[in-house]
Amino acid sequence: MAKQSLEKNIIKIAKAAKEASYKVSLISTSMKNDALRKMAAALVARKAYLIKENKKDLDAAVRKNYAKALIDRLTLNEKRIEEMAACLLDTAKLNDPVGKVLRTIKRPNGLVIKKVSVPIGVVGIIYESRPNVTSDCVGLCLKSGNAVILKGGKEAIYSNKAIFSVLRDALKQTKIPLDSIQLVSSIDRQAVTTLLKQDRLVDVIVPRGGEGLINFVVENSRIPVIKHAKGICHTYVSDKGNLEKALDICMNAKVQRPGVCNAMETMLVHRGIAKKFLPVIGCELQSAGVELRGDAQTRKILKGIKSATEKDWDTEYLDLILSIKVVNNLREAIDHINHHGSNHSDTIVTESRKEVDQFFRSVDSACLYANASTRFTDGYMFGFGAEVGISTDKLHARGPMGLEELTTYKYIVQGTGQIRK
Amino acid sequence: MAKQSLEKNIIKIAKAAKEASYKVSLISTSMKNDALRKMAAALVARKAYLIKENKKDLDAAVRKNYAKALIDRLTLNEKRIEEMAACLLDTAKLNDPVGKVLRTIKRPNGLVIKKVSVPIGVVGIIYESRPNVTSDCVGLCLKSGNAVILKGGKEAIYSNKAIFSVLRDALKQTKIPLDSIQLVSSIDRQAVTTLLKQDRLVDVIVPRGGEGLINFVVENSRIPVIKHAKGICHTYVSDKGNLEKALDICMNAKVQRPGVCNAMETMLVHRGIAKKFLPVIGCELQSAGVELRGDAQTRKILKGIKSATEKDWDTEYLDLILSIKVVNNLREAIDHINHHGSNHSDTIVTESRKEVDQFFRSVDSACLYANASTRFTDGYMFGFGAEVGISTDKLHARGPMGLEELTTYKYIVQGTGQIRK
Repeated sequence: MAKQSLEKNIIKIAKAAKEASYKVSLISTSMKNDALRKMAAALVARKAYLIKENKKDLDAAVRKNYAKALIDRLTLNEKRIEEMAACLLDTAKLNDPVGKVLRTIKRPNGLVIKKVSVPIGVVGIIYESRPNVTSDCVGLCLKSGNAVILKGGKEAIYSNKAIFSVLRDALKQTKIPLDSIQLVSSIDRQAVTTLLKQDRLVDVIVPRGGEGLINFVVENSRIPVIKHAKGICHTYVSDKGNLEKALDICMNAKVQRPGVCNAMETMLVHRGIAKKFLPVIGCELQSAGVELRGDAQTRKILKGIKSATEKDWDTEYLDLILSIKVVNNLREAIDHINHHGSNHSDTIVTESRKEVDQFFRSVDSACLYANASTRFTDGYMFGFGAEVGISTDKLHARGPMGLEELTTYKYIVQGTGQIRK
Repeated sequence: MAKQSLEKNIIKIAKAAKEASYKVSLISTSMKNDALRKMAAALVARKAYLIKENKKDLDAAVRKNYAKALIDRLTLNEKRIEEMAACLLDTAKLNDPVGKVLRTIKRPNGLVIKKVSVPIGVVGIIYESRPNVTSDCVGLCLKSGNAVILKGGKEAIYSNKAIFSVLRDALKQTKIPLDSIQLVSSIDRQAVTTLLKQDRLVDVIVPRGGEGLINFVVENSRIPVIKHAKGICHTYVSDKGNLEKALDICMNAKVQRPGVCNAMETMLVHRGIAKKFLPVIGCELQSAGVELRGDAQTRKILKGIKSATEKDWDTEYLDLILSIKVVNNLREAIDHINHHGSNHSDTIVTESRKEVDQFFRSVDSACLYANASTRFTDGYMFGFGAEVGISTDKLHARGPMGLEELTTYKYIVQGTGQIRK
């Protein structure tokens, strides 16, 4: 019975979002921006309430002995609430992605076909413990004319409910339908399973989180999914590379923020410069606290480091650990990346134009770099202003997913009575 | 044991396609076009063989008492084989969709980001009884630099194997890897189930066929799916419409080819012109053999026709049957289409610019028409040359899906040593 009423509730939420999506798609840019500014102001005005509710989640997390990193991600403080508000204000400043004419086709029979950008409809976002995702995604979905259904992790339930109620209160001061933003507050997994079956009501699911969550969503969804999965990012240092640049880039990609998806997990080094480069980078990495794991060739040069197993090449450490492999040539580096990477971000350090071209053409990843750190893969760094996440899928959105990627298109065809012969 | 070896075989096929996809993505336009022309020539040269093999499928279909329409779709004759060859030649003439710079972003730190079109990778096509899909899809996937895995219906197994072997023989005369085109010849459903789990090897699944097939694929796939599902297309005749145009458009949309997805299934008529328009169109439709089913208002005017039930509004007849509803205004027509349509193609007949704009903005379908027949939704009619099908999904591809829609993009970022601060 409880299960039945949970299902009914989820379907009710999805139906309300669908109905609201028809209306929110028609709302003017200025009205959307006004709502975003009101939401930003409300977050700041109700800081004390948000921090109080967040405390409940933090207390539970401490009781349950959650990892420090998770507790950090979960924490709201004045600064973080101000950042959430700033993100909403930034989103208000971005161009409206809806209503752009992407292409015009004139046919010999006089039909004029226009391909026009439109909101996707209802966007479902399933995420874990970061409460700021709640306001970031409400802002991006609203600006792109979509209705949104949010389902956050149970660890952040009090925080998410509080943020959501503040945003919804702000929406009441506008003419935008309240039902265009929805929060699933049940912590029962059945809630997610039911949501994932509503393919008549929800147009896309974006899961953000660990491998377990992503797999669960992919396995159970009847709705199209855009995955924001893991990042096994590589740096390949060519024998034609500038080794000073290589040093800076490798250190930055590994050490600056090791817990994020665009950090380097594997370094590939051309055998021609391995003897020269590995001792230098190895020393710097170890000084920065990085644990090194190498293949046989690497360990001949960096004596005493751990051995990298096959499993290492497929592992996203999200930590101060790096696997290292010596390769015979660019071809071998490309093959390694295509077989062990996660189609996220990879970089080559080389001064050879020919090598850059081959790397760009042959590696099958969302973002490829030459002589720059993989850490730049990020909506803000790409100049998109904000992002829903970074897609490791190939359909619809690839790489940083911002406002444009929250739209689809329709063809509108103006005729004067044409019929098909 | 048989099940195990079937699974192994499918995984082997998918792995081979994935490996080939890296190579085929790099092949020059001229080499791809040359292969398409060789394939076209081979189909024509081996007509007799193809017709002989097709006969085996036809004999089985007659024995099993299959419907006439299915037998018609299954039949290969000289003309149809020539059309298949012509489609390959047309595809050779189209622009290469790969390698286009879609956007260039210059960042303040000196990074130059280019968004470039690239093949998707491995495309899986699951279809039913039309053997021409085999050569059409091989042509489109090859031209767009993708590897393709084909899984046709068991009814067409001899025909598909024969077409495939002719195409593969032609490919042997080129330097394109043979593994870039693959046919799953097992008729065991387990073959499809196994294929749908290979999300590390296959990048997209395009199912083409009836509702049962589409649902099975959506239910079982871990791979992103682009659905080519049903078309419940509407024509709304406004009181501000030209009734002569309305008559032509409705007749064309319903009668010219009722068995296809872009034919009209429901006609909505404004109450202000119902008394004038319905008797005229009703008479013409009935003369053309169309069975009419109306709501209460319609049946007050068209006496003696069947009653349309709720189920009728959600039915794709694919036959000479039409449901008719009288509506009070444009708003009601839009709501009906959004709730009962299939997001495929809908048209309004009106001389009012305001009504056209509202219809274009508010109806959530892939293709919207004003004063033209819905029958124009088709890659050829849109000027795309050829099509994989018509997507009723909203992600990645919407409406006619041609070469461009068989590509995705990657970001290539040129740096000079940039690292993230």
